[in-house]
Amino acid sequence: MSDLSKPQTGMTLPQPFFTSPEMYNSEREKLFFRHWFCVGRASELTQPGSFILADVAGEQVICTLDDEGRLRGFYNNCRHRGTRLVTESSGEFSSCKIQCPYHRWTYSCRGDLVTAPRADEDPEFRVEEWPLQTVNIASWQGFLLVNLSEQPRPLVDVFSSFINRLDPWQTDSLLPVHTEVYELTTNWKLVLENFNECYHCSSIHPGLAQLSPPRSATNDFSDGLLLGGPMELAKESMTMTGRRCCDAIDTLSAEDCRRTYYYTLFPNLLLAMHPDFVLAWRLHPIAPDRTRIICQWLFPPDRIQLPEFDASGAIEFWEMTNRQDWDICQENFDGIRSRGYQSGPYMANEVVLKMLDQRILQALEIEPTPPR
Amino acid sequence: MSDLSKPQTGMTLPQPFFTSPEMYNSEREKLFFRHWFCVGRASELTQPGSFILADVAGEQVICTLDDEGRLRGFYNNCRHRGTRLVTESSGEFSSCKIQCPYHRWTYSCRGDLVTAPRADEDPEFRVEEWPLQTVNIASWQGFLLVNLSEQPRPLVDVFSSFINRLDPWQTDSLLPVHTEVYELTTNWKLVLENFNECYHCSSIHPGLAQLSPPRSATNDFSDGLLLGGPMELAKESMTMTGRRCCDAIDTLSAEDCRRTYYYTLFPNLLLAMHPDFVLAWRLHPIAPDRTRIICQWLFPPDRIQLPEFDASGAIEFWEMTNRQDWDICQENFDGIRSRGYQSGPYMANEVVLKMLDQRILQALEIEPTPPR
Amino acid sequence: MSDLSKPQTGMTLPQPFFTSPEMYNSEREKLFFRHWFCVGRASELTQPGSFILADVAGEQVICTLDDEGRLRGFYNNCRHRGTRLVTESSGEFSSCKIQCPYHRWTYSCRGDLVTAPRADEDPEFRVEEWPLQTVNIASWQGFLLVNLSEQPRPLVDVFSSFINRLDPWQTDSLLPVHTEVYELTTNWKLVLENFNECYHCSSIHPGLAQLSPPRSATNDFSDGLLLGGPMELAKESMTMTGRRCCDAIDTLSAEDCRRTYYYTLFPNLLLAMHPDFVLAWRLHPIAPDRTRIICQWLFPPDRIQLPEFDASGAIEFWEMTNRQDWDICQENFDGIRSRGYQSGPYMANEVVLKMLDQRILQALEIEPTPPR
Repeated sequence: MSDLSKPQTGMTLPQPFFTSPEMYNSEREKLFFRHWFCVGRASELTQPGSFILADVAGEQVICTLDDEGRLRGFYNNCRHRGTRLVTESSGEFSSCKIQCPYHRWTYSCRGDLVTAPRADEDPEFRVEEWPLQTVNIASWQGFLLVNLSEQPRPLVDVFSSFINRLDPWQTDSLLPVHTEVYELTTNWKLVLENFNECYHCSSIHPGLAQLSPPRSATNDFSDGLLLGGPMELAKESMTMTGRRCCDAIDTLSAEDCRRTYYYTLFPNLLLAMHPDFVLAWRLHPIAPDRTRIICQWLFPPDRIQLPEFDASGAIEFWEMTNRQDWDICQENFDGIRSRGYQSGPYMANEVVLKMLDQRILQALEIEPTPPR
Repeated sequence: MSDLSKPQTGMTLPQPFFTSPEMYNSEREKLFFRHWFCVGRASELTQPGSFILADVAGEQVICTLDDEGRLRGFYNNCRHRGTRLVTESSGEFSSCKIQCPYHRWTYSCRGDLVTAPRADEDPEFRVEEWPLQTVNIASWQGFLLVNLSEQPRPLVDVFSSFINRLDPWQTDSLLPVHTEVYELTTNWKLVLENFNECYHCSSIHPGLAQLSPPRSATNDFSDGLLLGGPMELAKESMTMTGRRCCDAIDTLSAEDCRRTYYYTLFPNLLLAMHPDFVLAWRLHPIAPDRTRIICQWLFPPDRIQLPEFDASGAIEFWEMTNRQDWDICQENFDGIRSRGYQSGPYMANEVVLKMLDQRILQALEIEPTPPR
Repeated sequence: MSDLSKPQTGMTLPQPFFTSPEMYNSEREKLFFRHWFCVGRASELTQPGSFILADVAGEQVICTLDDEGRLRGFYNNCRHRGTRLVTESSGEFSSCKIQCPYHRWTYSCRGDLVTAPRADEDPEFRVEEWPLQTVNIASWQGFLLVNLSEQPRPLVDVFSSFINRLDPWQTDSLLPVHTEVYELTTNWKLVLENFNECYHCSSIHPGLAQLSPPRSATNDFSDGLLLGGPMELAKESMTMTGRRCCDAIDTLSAEDCRRTYYYTLFPNLLLAMHPDFVLAWRLHPIAPDRTRIICQWLFPPDRIQLPEFDASGAIEFWEMTNRQDWDICQENFDGIRSRGYQSGPYMANEVVLKMLDQRILQALEIEPTPPR
C-alpha cells in the first residue's frame, strides 16, 4: 500500500491522526493546550471562593473567583510535593483559601502561598517563591474558557470576528435546565466531523430530517475559529413534537426564529442555537480512542420560571439524536483503526470538514499534500 | 545473562517472540497477513448475499457470496470515511447490496460502488474509483481461508503437496454439530506447540493417554504447511467411553479407522481426524498475550440425521481435554514472560516443534544461530 | 517550561521518576533486583520442602527449605519450556521434589534436575546441564530477603552497621497475629516518602498525633540502608486506646518503652517498633502506578498465648492510619502525573526524604544537579 500517513487536501485524515498516542500527545501540546478550551458555564461560579475542577485533555484546572470576584485559573497541584489540592468536581473554598490536604500549605484564591507549616525551621524558605501555577481563564457568552499556553493571544483578539455573534440569543444569561454526560469510544475529531455535516442526517436521524431538511444546511462562518451556519426549520423548533418549549427568545429576528444555527467554536465547543433554547456540547478528549461529551440544554431564566415551562420535548429529542450520532461515531472509529481504512474523499456538502482538517493541520504544524 | 533474544536451533524461542508488541506486529504483517488463514467453514455461506465477518489477527474481513455464488472477501470499511459496513458476525445482504450505515454508500457483493447519495453535487466524483478493497479468499476441504497479501500464491499451488490428504474423511461435506469459543491468556504459538507434541499427554491428559498411547505418535508430514501424523487408537475413537459416536466414515481405510491423525495447517488451523468425526480448532491471535480458539466438532451429514446419533461423548471428551491444554498453555506463557525464562532444549519427541519454529522464523525473515 | 526531567538536590524528583515505564524498568533492573528485597517471614517455612512463592517487582521466586533445612531460592520456571513450576502462594513440596506440571521434569529442593521423562531418547541430553536457576536468599531478624543479582554482596556485609539494631525487640522470634494486603494506585516511592516524614501527621493523622507528638520525630540512622529513628510516645503504645496490647517486650530498655521507632530497610521494608509489638510493611511494586503493600502485626509468641491477649486495638489503629496514608499517597501520585507538577522544595523536617532520593539516584546511576 502507498504511504498512508501523509494527509491529502480534500481527503479524510490518515489513520494515525485518529489512533496514534504520539499524535494525540501532539494534539494535547499544540492544539488543546494552545487554544481557548471551553470548560463550563460562568454561572457555575456564584461568589468569591466558588470553584469548579475542569479537565483539559487530561489536565486538571481549578477555576475559581478570587476575593474581588475576578476569574482565576490554577493547575491542581500543590507546589510542595505536587499533591492534588482539590478532588471534588466543584465547591467553595472556605474564606477564599485553598489548602493542600497533605501538609496544609495554604494559598489565597489569587494563587499566593500564604502559609506553609514549620517553614520557620528552614531559614531559606520564602513563601513568595511558591505561588500556584496560573492558567489563563476568560468568559465569552457565558462560557468559561481556559488556555494552557503561557502567553496566549487574548480571547477578545482571537474571537474578534465573531465575538458578538451569539448576542441575539442572550447567550450570556442562559441557564442549564438539563445536563447529560456521554463516554464514547471514539476519537474527538470524528465527533467534530459528525457535527459539521448533515450528509448523514437522512440515514442516521430520520426524526431530525423531518423537522429540518438536511439539504437546507449552509455555512455563514467557514474560516477562523467559529464555523457553521443555519438550517431551515420545517416546524417551530427541534423537539419531539416540533413545537417550541417556550416562546422564542425576545431579541431574535423573524428569520432567526425559522432556523437552527449550528456552530463549532474550535476546538471543543459545539452549539445549536434554536429559537427557544441553545444546546451546547463540550468535547473532552480523554485518549486517542476515548472522548467525553457534556451536553447542556440552556434556556432563558425568565422562561424557566414560567409555570407552563416544559423542556422535556427538547431534552428527549436531542438525547435520541445524540445517541444516534455517538453510535455511528464509534463505528466510524472502529473502521478507521483497522488496516482496511484508507483516506476517502470528502463530498461537496462536507466542505466544513475540509476547513476543520485545515485548522487541525495548522495547529499541528503539518502541511498537507495537494489534491490529486 | 547472555543475549536472550537470538533464537537458537533446537531450543525454544526467546522471550520476545512471545511477549513483544513489536514482534507481534511483525507476525501480523509477515505471517498472518501473508499466509492463507482459516476463518470458518464454507457451509456458513448458504446463498448469494450470505456473509460472515471474519477476524484475521485483528483485521475484519467480510466473506460473502456474490450474485453468481462466487466467494468474495472485502475489508470491512466504507471507502468514504472508513466506517464499518457490517457489525453482525454473520447475516444476509439484502439484494446482494452492501450499504454503509453512515451516509448510505452502497456496494454490490462484487465490491463495486453502485450509488453514493448527492454524488451529483460533485462533478469530479466517479463511483468507479471507490470499490471496496478486496481480500483474497478460497476454500479447501470445506474450510474458508483468506489471504491479506495483495498478490498471494494461489492456494492450490502452496497446498499442492497435500491438497487431497483429507479426502478420505470427506472433509468437504462435514457439518458442525457443536462449537466452543475459548479466550486464552497466552501466546498463540504456545497453543501450536502444545498441539504438536504428545510429550505432555501422560501428565496433562490421563484420559487421552488411555485411549491413545502417547508414545505411538509419529509424523507423516514434517515440512511444508501441513505438519503432523497419526497416533494409534487403543479403543474405537476419542470419546468419554472410547466408543464411536456413529459408524466410521465410509471412505476410510481399515488402518485409518485404528488411528487419529493430528495435523496443523500452518499458521492457524489444527485438525484431529477421527474415524467418526473431525475436530477443527482455529487459532485467532488477539494480542501477544491473548488468543481466541474456536473449536468445532464436524460430522458427516448422513450420520447426523440418524435417530441414534449422539455426539456428546466426543464433545465432552474434547471439552475436558481442551481445558487441560489451555490451562497449561497459560502457565507456560506466564513462565515465559518472566525474567527467569531462558530458552530450553526441545526433546527428541518434540521434533515438530523445531519444524514449526523454522516455519515461523522463515516467515519473520530471522536466521537462527546454529546449535551449540 | 524548563527541563523538568533532571533531578535537583533538595527538590522532589521530576515526574518521569514516578510515571515513566522506562524509569520503572530501570528501577527493576538496577534497584529492586540488586538490593536485598524482603519477601516474607522465615517462620512461614516450617520444614524441609515448605515453600512460599515470592514476588519481586513482578518476578516470581520460589523460597524453600532443602532436605537439610537450608534456605533456597529459585526462579519459578522449568528449564525445559519455561512453564511455571508452582502456582500456589505457599505449600509443601512432596518428598522435597519440585515437579513441573507440563512434562514432569523433576528437580530436588537443592535445584538439581533429577529426572526428565524420555530423556533416554536423546543421547546428548544431560540432566546435570539443566538445574533450576538460583536466586540468593537470606534471613535477617526473622525476615526473608532475596537478591536477584548474580553475585550480590552478602547480606551480613551490607547490613553490618545495623545488623543487631532490632535485637532488643527479639524480632527474630515474633509471629504475625494479623496481615492486611492493600492495592494502591500510586508509585512505591511516594509510600516510602510518606513513611519517612511526620510533617503530614497533624493533617492526615489526628489520632496518631495525639499518641505521639509529630515534632518529636528524630533520626538515628540517616545513611546506609537503614534509615529513621524514634518518636516519643504520649501514651503507652500506638493503639485505639493508647494502651498496650500486652506487657512490653522483656528485653527493651525503659527509654525504648517510651518510644516508637520508625525504620526503613531500603528498598522495600518499613518497620514500626513499638514497646509491645512490631509492625512491618512490605512494599511490592507492580507497575509505575501500582503498589501492593503487605502489612503484618508481629507479637512475641509468649504474649500471644496469654488468655488476656488482645491485639485488636493495635490492628484497628494501624488499619485506620494505613488507609489515611494510602489515600493521600494516591492523591499525591495523581497530582504528580499531571503536567501541572513541578519539583517542589523538601522542608527541613523532610531530611530523610532527601537521603532516600540520594539512595535511589545512586542505584539508578543518575547524578542530581546541585541546589539552586
